[in-house]
Amino acid sequence: MSNVVLTIAGSDSSGGAGIQADLKAFAAHGCYGASVITALTAQNTTGVQGVHPTPSQFVEQQITSVFDDLDIRAIKTGMLFDAAIAKVVVQSLKTRASHGPLPPVICDPVCVSTSGHTLLNEDALDVLISELFPLSTLITPNKSEAELLLSRMGTNVKINDLDAMLASAKKLLSVGCEAVLIKGGHIITHIQDVIATQSKYPELKVIKQGLLGDNMEILLVNYPDIAINSLELVADVLYHKSGETTMFVRPHIESSSTHGTGCTLSSAIASELANGSSLDVAVANAAMYTHVGIQTAHPIGKGHGPLNHFHNVTKFLIPQRTATNPYPFTRLLIEGASSSWKGYVEHDFVRQLGQGTLDRARFIHFIKQDYLYLKYYARAYGLLAAKSTSFGWIRSATETILNVLHEIGNHKTYCSTFGITEADLENTPESAATTSYGAYMIDIGLQGDSMKLVMALTACLLGYGEVGLWLKKQASMENSWVVLEGNPYKHWIEEYAGKMYQDAVRIGLETIESFAVADPPSAQRLNEWHSVWERCTRLEKGFWDMAMQLSE
Amino acid sequence: MSNVVLTIAGSDSSGGAGIQADLKAFAAHGCYGASVITALTAQNTTGVQGVHPTPSQFVEQQITSVFDDLDIRAIKTGMLFDAAIAKVVVQSLKTRASHGPLPPVICDPVCVSTSGHTLLNEDALDVLISELFPLSTLITPNKSEAELLLSRMGTNVKINDLDAMLASAKKLLSVGCEAVLIKGGHIITHIQDVIATQSKYPELKVIKQGLLGDNMEILLVNYPDIAINSLELVADVLYHKSGETTMFVRPHIESSSTHGTGCTLSSAIASELANGSSLDVAVANAAMYTHVGIQTAHPIGKGHGPLNHFHNVTKFLIPQRTATNPYPFTRLLIEGASSSWKGYVEHDFVRQLGQGTLDRARFIHFIKQDYLYLKYYARAYGLLAAKSTSFGWIRSATETILNVLHEIGNHKTYCSTFGITEADLENTPESAATTSYGAYMIDIGLQGDSMKLVMALTACLLGYGEVGLWLKKQASMENSWVVLEGNPYKHWIEEYAGKMYQDAVRIGLETIESFAVADPPSAQRLNEWHSVWERCTRLEKGFWDMAMQLSE
Repeated sequence: MSNVVLTIAGSDSSGGAGIQADLKAFAAHGCYGASVITALTAQNTTGVQGVHPTPSQFVEQQITSVFDDLDIRAIKTGMLFDAAIAKVVVQSLKTRASHGPLPPVICDPVCVSTSGHTLLNEDALDVLISELFPLSTLITPNKSEAELLLSRMGTNVKINDLDAMLASAKKLLSVGCEAVLIKGGHIITHIQDVIATQSKYPELKVIKQGLLGDNMEILLVNYPDIAINSLELVADVLYHKSGETTMFVRPHIESSSTHGTGCTLSSAIASELANGSSLDVAVANAAMYTHVGIQTAHPIGKGHGPLNHFHNVTKFLIPQRTATNPYPFTRLLIEGASSSWKGYVEHDFVRQLGQGTLDRARFIHFIKQDYLYLKYYARAYGLLAAKSTSFGWIRSATETILNVLHEIGNHKTYCSTFGITEADLENTPESAATTSYGAYMIDIGLQGDSMKLVMALTACLLGYGEVGLWLKKQASMENSWVVLEGNPYKHWIEEYAGKMYQDAVRIGLETIESFAVADPPSAQRLNEWHSVWERCTRLEKGFWDMAMQLSE
Repeated sequence: MSNVVLTIAGSDSSGGAGIQADLKAFAAHGCYGASVITALTAQNTTGVQGVHPTPSQFVEQQITSVFDDLDIRAIKTGMLFDAAIAKVVVQSLKTRASHGPLPPVICDPVCVSTSGHTLLNEDALDVLISELFPLSTLITPNKSEAELLLSRMGTNVKINDLDAMLASAKKLLSVGCEAVLIKGGHIITHIQDVIATQSKYPELKVIKQGLLGDNMEILLVNYPDIAINSLELVADVLYHKSGETTMFVRPHIESSSTHGTGCTLSSAIASELANGSSLDVAVANAAMYTHVGIQTAHPIGKGHGPLNHFHNVTKFLIPQRTATNPYPFTRLLIEGASSSWKGYVEHDFVRQLGQGTLDRARFIHFIKQDYLYLKYYARAYGLLAAKSTSFGWIRSATETILNVLHEIGNHKTYCSTFGITEADLENTPESAATTSYGAYMIDIGLQGDSMKLVMALTACLLGYGEVGLWLKKQASMENSWVVLEGNPYKHWIEEYAGKMYQDAVRIGLETIESFAVADPPSAQRLNEWHSVWERCTRLEKGFWDMAMQLSE
């Protein structure tokens, strides 16, 4: 379930700032983004080439469309361009507030682009200060925006150090918002300054981000320049109307990938709030998200490139379960090894068994080796029990062993109808195909974790289930080549197509599907699973081959 | 590295269609999105409440800004609103083409919204047909768009079945584009129809998507209604100018989450092409992406809600390696267990050892147990070798065993300076702290995969490295409480702070960091790793406790 977040801001044609950056940041936080556009810009990483403001009535109409339909959990405002637009935004928020509490409003007072282009007419400043800020949960000016706002409020100040940031934040709070975040990305500081400021303001909370804590000397051996004393730092100051003040300190990064940093930060804060974080946590997480976005950016464009908005997400490799795809993982496994799976399920041995024409000696050879194989199979479940971390798993592995032991009982009875005694079964020399398959399962169980072992065990479980159902389906067709009546192997077919075995198949399917959902694999891990699965289908085929060739 | 994809289309304030859907689809495919806005709409899931077209010159200016700066790998066009806008798009593409080959252009001829609102003036149709389509790699009309376009071209036809789709696609191709995709999302068909069509057109390639293949009877037992014969199907037809014709067939889904389906599909195709897929593969993947987007959508809004654009991505849990965070995974482990890590590294035993005041009997007790512990430790690396899947890993585990055996030699020499003989070492009864730590490592090695075992082994390796460096750092400070000269344990401290041991620490760090990058863990797996790490820090602390208390 995605929380809906709304941005009211300008559009950046090059996609790195404005509503485009906002939508990307919302998405990276798992939120659903809606966007009201206040102005179009013709813009790229080298600068703003043109601005086309939206008529204020149309800004209002967009907001109305969104508010009328969507359950908005947070709102972020960016570039508002002029007083008329700022006023309709204020009016729309007030109207919305008359119907119930407003969601958190994060106001990023965008005034000037990184490249120096004016994005807010001067007449709009007063609307922001006197009308929009009082509706805001948080305002997020950078150094120059804070200076401009304060000068409009009658205070001329240059914000060049931590003390000035703290004093300015306190002053800005008087506009009536709930909290002020002054962003110090352009004010280089050092840990000594932070310590000095902290000692002057004992109530100040300092959150160190991306800095090494105590007892991390080992991490410095190869990277002594990341020791806290030698780092250039930057800080953001969060001043809350309760008086609580927090300083977020982190390493300064020299980068040209900073286009849209402010948009991204305020959108990340809005997303965090929409997802239920407290303001402190929201700002802390959003600041680190933005920091890493700058650090991991790939060069795009010729000027100040955009951040990497999606550094915190990766591909999901197994499709989601849906009504028409209830077993997506099993399907992926079968499709990924479709030719060897077909070669296993539709093997000549299986066909001749269905026709009832299978040579009796071959079947006897098979059934004796299958008895020896089942010993490995039961032991592999014992190993699975040994590898389990919960009583539930221990029980399920153990019950499977008991089922195999029960199957063994049937096996003996069934074999006796072919004149094979228990002593014959026990004294049969193990064929190479049996050893390779059985020992492979035990080896996989030793090598990997439970899931890897389950992969091997399930290929066998599901394959025999498929053989049973495939023969049953063929038998149900008109003039089928599969004959059940009078077939000496009817009992065998019915056992694997029957309810008891198919119940086990279903449990196997659910097990691997839920395993894969609970612990979604990386590409490397999924590859390993595919390879175990495919190997087992080939080993199964080798088992039928062995029976057909009467080979050792 | 993200490939840049550009959309030239309208804006949907509610975020489900238009450039918003396009940007979301680009992002879900790992592409970087830029967007030129042709018109703003005040819109939500119930309909379009207003349209504010962009002046055509400003559309041109946006395109210029983007083309001048970004390396565009694919272009998608959507709502173009009127002839003037369509003409500047055509002109801009022609200008761009005069500088070198155009990237693939996917033209989604958006004419009417799902809710019935006109999004393309009639006069623009001719510009599309005669000027934009000939520049396009692919055009993607749905049933009603195809009917409208064909009628404008002089052919009145109702497209209600597969035959009509094929014929219409062929006719539309005559406009001069490279390929036509007619989307049949509103034309219900069945597998019998597909088979009939296929027999009429033997050259037709049919790609079944989301339908069960052969040998998947087991997947039907609980879900018989997904058997291919009982499913309502839909098909898209791709007609290429080479004559190659492909039909993509998949289950019809009844859903109200279809707002922006067309935008999403064409953007997904553009992304796939930007990422290097062939047209066939691009269409196939994009169709499935969109299909699952509808199936997994959460309800948003009161009308036709948007798709789930991000069903194919998930959170990355370990931060990326950056210049200021070179060991993000190790750091996460240390920070996740910071108090027990500190309790381990800064234990009283360690402090007294640094001061040189540690009771000699306690040290002797410790060093004897450490000898016994190292036997478990070496065996655990033997188990790691047994679990390895490459000679590289077998070698590295084995070399560690040899290092431990070498350390054991030093151990004996060192112990002899305390009057402890080899026989004393071998005859020492094992204390409970030694057994619990040693046996825990072996157990973890049995339970899980290599990485889980490596977690346990590395907590010990890195912890002793940190102890050594911490004491060394303390010793380097003025008036330090750590005394090296005359300290009876100087040799021990220098061993763990020394180059040889620290080299092993660095290899350990690189190992777990590269492991975590190659096989990024799920939340469940990361939790397990955290818990093994934390447990080992506590077992290490227990080991020092045992020495201090001289307990068994």
